[in-house]
Amino acid sequence: MSGAATNMRVKLPAICLVLQIILIILFGVLVQYNHDTDAKLWHKGNQSDYENDFYYRYPSFQDVHVMIFVGFGFLMTFLQRYGFSSVGFNFLIAAFSLQWATLMQGFFHGFHGGKIHIGVESMINADFCTGAVLISFGAVLGKTSPVQLLVMAMFEVTLFSINEYILLSLLGARDAGGSMTIHTFGAYFGLVVTRVLYRPNLDKSQKRNSSVYHSDLFAMIGTLFLWMFWPSFNSAVTAHGDDQHRTAMNTYYSLASCTLATFGMSALTAHDGKLDMVHIQNAALAGGVAIGTAGEMMLTPFGSMIVGFLAGIISVLGFKYLSPFLESKLKIQDTCGVHNLHGMPGILGAIVGAVTAAAATTEIYGGGMKDVFPDVASQARDSFKQGGLQAISLVVTLGMALGGGLIVGFILKLPIYGSPSDTICYEDSIYWEVPGEEETHEDQLTTVRAEEVEKLNS
Amino acid sequence: MSGAATNMRVKLPAICLVLQIILIILFGVLVQYNHDTDAKLWHKGNQSDYENDFYYRYPSFQDVHVMIFVGFGFLMTFLQRYGFSSVGFNFLIAAFSLQWATLMQGFFHGFHGGKIHIGVESMINADFCTGAVLISFGAVLGKTSPVQLLVMAMFEVTLFSINEYILLSLLGARDAGGSMTIHTFGAYFGLVVTRVLYRPNLDKSQKRNSSVYHSDLFAMIGTLFLWMFWPSFNSAVTAHGDDQHRTAMNTYYSLASCTLATFGMSALTAHDGKLDMVHIQNAALAGGVAIGTAGEMMLTPFGSMIVGFLAGIISVLGFKYLSPFLESKLKIQDTCGVHNLHGMPGILGAIVGAVTAAAATTEIYGGGMKDVFPDVASQARDSFKQGGLQAISLVVTLGMALGGGLIVGFILKLPIYGSPSDTICYEDSIYWEVPGEEETHEDQLTTVRAEEVEKLNS
Amino acid sequence: MSGAATNMRVKLPAICLVLQIILIILFGVLVQYNHDTDAKLWHKGNQSDYENDFYYRYPSFQDVHVMIFVGFGFLMTFLQRYGFSSVGFNFLIAAFSLQWATLMQGFFHGFHGGKIHIGVESMINADFCTGAVLISFGAVLGKTSPVQLLVMAMFEVTLFSINEYILLSLLGARDAGGSMTIHTFGAYFGLVVTRVLYRPNLDKSQKRNSSVYHSDLFAMIGTLFLWMFWPSFNSAVTAHGDDQHRTAMNTYYSLASCTLATFGMSALTAHDGKLDMVHIQNAALAGGVAIGTAGEMMLTPFGSMIVGFLAGIISVLGFKYLSPFLESKLKIQDTCGVHNLHGMPGILGAIVGAVTAAAATTEIYGGGMKDVFPDVASQARDSFKQGGLQAISLVVTLGMALGGGLIVGFILKLPIYGSPSDTICYEDSIYWEVPGEEETHEDQLTTVRAEEVEKLNS
Repeated sequence: MSGAATNMRVKLPAICLVLQIILIILFGVLVQYNHDTDAKLWHKGNQSDYENDFYYRYPSFQDVHVMIFVGFGFLMTFLQRYGFSSVGFNFLIAAFSLQWATLMQGFFHGFHGGKIHIGVESMINADFCTGAVLISFGAVLGKTSPVQLLVMAMFEVTLFSINEYILLSLLGARDAGGSMTIHTFGAYFGLVVTRVLYRPNLDKSQKRNSSVYHSDLFAMIGTLFLWMFWPSFNSAVTAHGDDQHRTAMNTYYSLASCTLATFGMSALTAHDGKLDMVHIQNAALAGGVAIGTAGEMMLTPFGSMIVGFLAGIISVLGFKYLSPFLESKLKIQDTCGVHNLHGMPGILGAIVGAVTAAAATTEIYGGGMKDVFPDVASQARDSFKQGGLQAISLVVTLGMALGGGLIVGFILKLPIYGSPSDTICYEDSIYWEVPGEEETHEDQLTTVRAEEVEKLNS
Repeated sequence: MSGAATNMRVKLPAICLVLQIILIILFGVLVQYNHDTDAKLWHKGNQSDYENDFYYRYPSFQDVHVMIFVGFGFLMTFLQRYGFSSVGFNFLIAAFSLQWATLMQGFFHGFHGGKIHIGVESMINADFCTGAVLISFGAVLGKTSPVQLLVMAMFEVTLFSINEYILLSLLGARDAGGSMTIHTFGAYFGLVVTRVLYRPNLDKSQKRNSSVYHSDLFAMIGTLFLWMFWPSFNSAVTAHGDDQHRTAMNTYYSLASCTLATFGMSALTAHDGKLDMVHIQNAALAGGVAIGTAGEMMLTPFGSMIVGFLAGIISVLGFKYLSPFLESKLKIQDTCGVHNLHGMPGILGAIVGAVTAAAATTEIYGGGMKDVFPDVASQARDSFKQGGLQAISLVVTLGMALGGGLIVGFILKLPIYGSPSDTICYEDSIYWEVPGEEETHEDQLTTVRAEEVEKLNS
Repeated sequence: MSGAATNMRVKLPAICLVLQIILIILFGVLVQYNHDTDAKLWHKGNQSDYENDFYYRYPSFQDVHVMIFVGFGFLMTFLQRYGFSSVGFNFLIAAFSLQWATLMQGFFHGFHGGKIHIGVESMINADFCTGAVLISFGAVLGKTSPVQLLVMAMFEVTLFSINEYILLSLLGARDAGGSMTIHTFGAYFGLVVTRVLYRPNLDKSQKRNSSVYHSDLFAMIGTLFLWMFWPSFNSAVTAHGDDQHRTAMNTYYSLASCTLATFGMSALTAHDGKLDMVHIQNAALAGGVAIGTAGEMMLTPFGSMIVGFLAGIISVLGFKYLSPFLESKLKIQDTCGVHNLHGMPGILGAIVGAVTAAAATTEIYGGGMKDVFPDVASQARDSFKQGGLQAISLVVTLGMALGGGLIVGFILKLPIYGSPSDTICYEDSIYWEVPGEEETHEDQLTTVRAEEVEKLNS
């Protein structure tokens, strides 16, 4: 894995600047304002300004944006000596991914006359795709160089966009909050990558693979911003009107229910009945993942709460019993436990979505059927077939994630990226200038004396 | 108080899982989508999507949501060894309370044909009710078990909803930002509870009842998110249009004015002219509390600034002079000083609201009278009577809070909840797995050596 | 500089309370609700509620508000012993400035019949003006007393408003995101002030003029909230519809591009190829500054990314090579490096804006020309002249900032404000009650024993 220098003096500038220049050129050639962002096009019509998609989606976009940068970034600061890398590399690969995703998704979804048309909805979708990359980042956290992460992001964004195209465009599946496209894909992709990058001697870095008191509080900033804004995440690209409204509300109740399940299960399973911060930081979010597909459907708050409840239970049990098994038996070193937060709850969400779709009737949806299940409304298929295609979408996603992760994992195994050796994982000082310690007590005494002198002088 | 084990292995899972299952069942029986969240109902009409209440209220809802989870949660992390509990228990009881409040408030306000209809406005109201519980949590912070807190939340949400019903529905009082329903009620309820739970030997935990440098910075995260989003809080459920707009603006100026008053008073009253973080973290917010009732009225920015100014002064003086008195003489151990931030400023807000209501004229309000004072607009009462009913509402609220707190306090005194003994208050490690210390200096040397070896190898 | 006592017992209360009382009186005399916040005026018309400006601008306002209080406040917490002052004084001077700016800007822009009319747009503008003051605060951070800062704010807000009036009203320049009015003005004003306040013996405080591990993480909270919400900042006061939409999107891509440039340049220039937190915290934001003027124009995402890319490169190079030069040769002690984040990128933004304006054609803007360049649309001038006036605006701004900073610097040099001596800069304990250290290990042992006793008892 290592042996190559971790020095980033040449590699990181090269990849950052070259990738950015390529992105700029491709944007210059391919990207255009869409109808709602172009001065001329917008003013051609007779729309009122309040009909601009900006006012329907921008508040949700900003919430999603916070989840991507602060939510994911700080959630991963729980490690005691890896805060700079968690927040910093999260920042770097997100800034890259959202640009690359604009192109990849635009190529598959928004290509008009040879040009990609962009606006607030494409920005949200780019952030969504970035979310999948950050989930995979969680699986390999502490064991990869920033160059390796950028290479991973480049491939993962591409595969994500292909998978998303198959699901949403070819199969006509519904997945507004991305239980399948984002969470299942991101998690299993990352798990396979970390399996391929298996480090037999990682126990030598074990002492740093844990939190300290303050790092757990920083991580809670990430947890809470993810938790609070998840209703916006799931509703950000659903249809206008009742759909966005209903999706946000379903997510709200799913998460609340999940949180009580998480606290209960954490005390039940943990040592001495004490709560485990790992569970609170992660499992309490599983309710947002598991409601990602069905959130826009007429699941009812009742159904949403059941989903959240199950997600919380599954997730805590995963952290407690499954993760150690995956690590010892299957050699999957999953730093953040993304299998418990995104993997299993993502699958649960896909199944719930398939069942809910299969149960949809005009009796329930009325005129809203065309927004939630356009193919059913247009009688291109019946609800049962929609449910079947949702299930097939899960299988496709798992296949794409596992296959893609395998290939990309081997690409990332090449000893050219400057990844750390097994003894020096989870350590900021390899890639960052880390500041010294705080002033010593002696310095402080000097300070106090200086203060006294000052008082005498004045 | 104690004597019972603080071990939560059985109690906490039992109460969390049982309460959540009950909530799920009640939601299944009672709760329905309202007009704006139901696919069929929404599409029956000819509304444009931008008329959906989601677009009027969801951005405000999200701001309120951040105040509840990050604002209240981090504000209480100022204690040096109670950060996990502050953020974590805040998270737990808020997730419970918002579900329970949906039912209780729905029972009193949104019952249609045996069903509770919910949407974004009920979500905001549920978060509001949760706010009152979290205020009471501030009074008992560090001295209660999570089980005890959930029991308190269960009763407090119920009483809150009854009081709210009396004020808003029976008396026709106006209280958009909850100076009375949320702040006064939450504060005095909590103060009576902490009085009943008086701990004579709490001084044995005194050394942990204070902050450290970094914990004060974490607390400022809470303070600032509360401060910034308070305009959204007060305007979240006012009428659409000028009302939301005006309320947000009045709150903005009240808070700014309060902040200068707080800094001034803090330096004036504190030792050596040095500023006290407790004042900045708390008293600077009193301007939001005190403008809660009158914020939607035509108070003018001028009036709002006077209210904020007074609130800041009262609050700092309360921290400095009244809190020690309450503790030593009245045996009220108010950990966060909620009396100074929510109690007195809440009463001030109620009085300002009564006076402003009594002074309302058609000359000033014009056609907007029906939004702010519907009973005055419909000539069911005159302004003076409206003012009188506002004042009566304050008295009712105080009565409900004091009486309710007394009863609930005694319920919470039962030695079955696993609350900590007097010697071990303000301490996370009773209820949480607390991580060890950071790497020792010796470990770091090992790390440095490992790095050097790696460099040689590469 | 010093010699005067740093004791704030009299000075700070006096200035805070007197200023606030003056503000209240002036608001009472001069300020009124505008059409969209006044109950009577709003209800006179036949507007639909969704046409109220609140719904167009309030979400953006809240994002800007977070940038001002959390963004700027936490960005400056990187110093190891100056976190209270960074967040606290930021809070104080922002709360003052936004009130004073309401009056000053209202006097120049919103004066109707002797009254200043206010609403959400004036609130955003007041926050914008506050931003300029906080930029200047960054230059003098750690070396000034709170009284000094309030005096600086008082003068700077006034000069800002005059400069803004000259640019926007007299010259008809466009500067929606404030590359000139906010960033260039704030930076150069602050740089001249810190030059006048030059401290020859500041090296005696040098050991505190650096970060520690956790303080760098706190600073990243500030960085990320600034980065995420910058699209809202630049689009907050542009015209409704496509303009807000386009501005947000241009800013989004500029920042993403800037971030990759920053990481690349940081690794390229820093010691051993290691990333420098100072660059990540600051230079990654330069893309938001540099797109401030041209963001609303039809710059295209392609153009925006080029601007962001250049801004990131310039900013890192500034931190690495120019700042040490400015300090050693020109005696400019720029604590936060505002020259690199706001100064040079601000000038870049002004130039980009001038060029983009000069290149505007009806072919590109169509009916949208009247929103972006009203004077060109009305044929009062041609695009080339608009570009020229943009360039002149930059020169005016630099002149106002340098001249104003010089005068205000000398006013601030008076030995009456209680500023710290050179030996005690960057130190919270002069102005704040700073809490003691965390519990010692011995205390913890006592705690553990107490726990054991409790277990035995129960």
